[in-house]
Amino acid sequence: MPDRHLLDVAYGRAHADAIIANGKLVNVLTGEVYPADVAIAAGRVAAVGDVSAQRGPRTEIIDAQGRFLTPGLIDGHVHIECSKLSVTMFSDLVSRYGTTSAISGLDQILVSAGIAGVEEFLAETENGPMRVWWGAPAKAPYTVPESNVGHRFAVAEHAIAQQMPECVGLWETVQEFVEFGDEEVLTAMDMAERNRLRAFGCAPLVDARRIAGYAASGVALCHESYSPAEELEKLRNGIDIIIRESTAAPMLRENIKLVTELGAPSHRVGFCTDDVTATDVLGRGHLDYVVRLAIECGVSPVVAIQMATINTARMYRLDDRIGAIAPGRFADILLVDSLEDFRPQTVITGGRIVARDGKSLSAPVAPARSAAIGETFRLAAVDPDRIKVTAAGRTATVQTIVLSKDVAFK
Amino acid sequence: MPDRHLLDVAYGRAHADAIIANGKLVNVLTGEVYPADVAIAAGRVAAVGDVSAQRGPRTEIIDAQGRFLTPGLIDGHVHIECSKLSVTMFSDLVSRYGTTSAISGLDQILVSAGIAGVEEFLAETENGPMRVWWGAPAKAPYTVPESNVGHRFAVAEHAIAQQMPECVGLWETVQEFVEFGDEEVLTAMDMAERNRLRAFGCAPLVDARRIAGYAASGVALCHESYSPAEELEKLRNGIDIIIRESTAAPMLRENIKLVTELGAPSHRVGFCTDDVTATDVLGRGHLDYVVRLAIECGVSPVVAIQMATINTARMYRLDDRIGAIAPGRFADILLVDSLEDFRPQTVITGGRIVARDGKSLSAPVAPARSAAIGETFRLAAVDPDRIKVTAAGRTATVQTIVLSKDVAFK
Repeated sequence: MPDRHLLDVAYGRAHADAIIANGKLVNVLTGEVYPADVAIAAGRVAAVGDVSAQRGPRTEIIDAQGRFLTPGLIDGHVHIECSKLSVTMFSDLVSRYGTTSAISGLDQILVSAGIAGVEEFLAETENGPMRVWWGAPAKAPYTVPESNVGHRFAVAEHAIAQQMPECVGLWETVQEFVEFGDEEVLTAMDMAERNRLRAFGCAPLVDARRIAGYAASGVALCHESYSPAEELEKLRNGIDIIIRESTAAPMLRENIKLVTELGAPSHRVGFCTDDVTATDVLGRGHLDYVVRLAIECGVSPVVAIQMATINTARMYRLDDRIGAIAPGRFADILLVDSLEDFRPQTVITGGRIVARDGKSLSAPVAPARSAAIGETFRLAAVDPDRIKVTAAGRTATVQTIVLSKDVAFK
Repeated sequence: MPDRHLLDVAYGRAHADAIIANGKLVNVLTGEVYPADVAIAAGRVAAVGDVSAQRGPRTEIIDAQGRFLTPGLIDGHVHIECSKLSVTMFSDLVSRYGTTSAISGLDQILVSAGIAGVEEFLAETENGPMRVWWGAPAKAPYTVPESNVGHRFAVAEHAIAQQMPECVGLWETVQEFVEFGDEEVLTAMDMAERNRLRAFGCAPLVDARRIAGYAASGVALCHESYSPAEELEKLRNGIDIIIRESTAAPMLRENIKLVTELGAPSHRVGFCTDDVTATDVLGRGHLDYVVRLAIECGVSPVVAIQMATINTARMYRLDDRIGAIAPGRFADILLVDSLEDFRPQTVITGGRIVARDGKSLSAPVAPARSAAIGETFRLAAVDPDRIKVTAAGRTATVQTIVLSKDVAFK
């Protein structure tokens, strides 16, 4: 971890690459707000406070003009592919609204193109403004019954995936797999423990008995709850909560009552958008909208910002790298005019300004992509014989999929 | 992680090994106190609340008789060897007072007998009532200037130590090593990052500049602060705080003001005893005394208990195993009559009662020890020539060590 240039700047022995001056720090680590400058080196925060010792002739000065400085926002669980955008375009879109990190399973690229596809996807994010932290799916596909996919991911590939430095744990460890003892999933969980990784959950609409069983398996957090009472039971059992506000399941207004009405400790609660369409993001914002919504529901601005930053970072054990404006963390920083009406005016990632007033400073560049991830949809020609339903008489029984009008998982 | 018997009991498909009935749960995960029974399987908590489904004909029932149930206490930083007791006797002593886990560097056995000595030491703890979680010293000895020791521990052995499942991170990553760029320590830290481990600190009496530098290196926590202001600066920079109340440095009364006066978030604060003599423990208790002292200083009982349990577990990333009475965690549980006058009446570790009313239920058994750890003090015979000071005249200048009357590190 310790980058030597970063250490030199942090200890005041070398000049910073950049300094953000004249800002008011929202210190999510303590809940305080106070004036502080930020010295940046090697893309990370080197020092916060009085950084005059770090100011040199070649130090770039970013003038915050009295604005608040907050950490970049973290999406605690998002299927990037569901936006129908490439990761390059998704990153360009949501970073304008202040999202600088996302935890994602990349399960749709995984079931199409395998680990090589995931690696190519992750490489594509390298130069973009948003960091992607990969949770390797406990197995994929993780549908019950199992879908037909181009590439199946389970135990053998976990041995590779869990060694990848980008891997932060197991993603979508579906409750039913744990409850019914799916050997592939339990083996991946055993392996994760040996690799010092934890499992992240997916346990919608579970009762106390299932929550106990699920918690006993070691699952660390869950983004799938359908009431504040269900959330509280999970918290009581040691499972952290990520409140979802997605296109399909906009649940924050109800589920934030965990904190505003049931009085649960806010530091164990984060936010995610799970599945969002590009039009939703363009229309109202991304996690910045979720922060505003939480504030509208009665959460104090600093606590809402903590939920969108440090809390999520801590539950994923990424708090040494993201989630706060503090030495050693990536310099992913937002300048905002108002904490009550939370709208990132300037977005900085890795110490570089990437967006201002909702616009990217540079147009995204389409990367070269390999055939492996570009040509995965191999459907034979469809002729009427392939889809016809044969009926003996004038009626027939067919299996259908019915979308619930109520909740995503009912 | 998921023990299959534990899962069966947690999901209510099998009977518990034991149930603690009629207790009032102190749920450190939410800060709530409410009646709840605890089902235990395979030495771990399986379910908490209504566990009637887990009660079978062979389930042992432990009647809490209305007492409070709290997690076993965690010593966040302790040199076990400094007590002058073997780990067997230390474990027997402090567990009577409710200490069921300790994070320790075992640096004194390490500099005597190497990793083999550490392994033998850890094996000796296996059957005792207290768990030892090992932080491998960033290097050992970590004195400046370096002491003469029987065994020197640095980079080459870190490659082995950091792979050991017992290893939870780097211990005593002394600030001066980071500030002055000790290559052995920085290399061990680089290695730790690759092994998904973090460095734990030792940064006494540091100013804002050094705190920034130290935090930039990625150090996660520090037990060495000499004022609430120094603690707050560390918290602001992303370093969690462990307040020490040791025989040599009883600092809680002053340093707890971090929470009671400066208003810092308590969930980032833990406790440790660092160096304690056996007589101190016998006279007043161990971490239970620290909890009582914190309460006396104005901390609410539940928050004080959180500081002695879940907070420390979380900062060491052990919260999936210890620090709370929740499914999956070791069944290390205390029964106490009063939260205000916190004195463990019954101590349970791994689901077994090990002490009651301050007395162990079974006498500790001295293990067989190898010559490697028993015969490490190899001093040649001392004759007057080895210690004489030669002076040309009637006076001479000699180097001495002076113990400060003020603080341990001045």
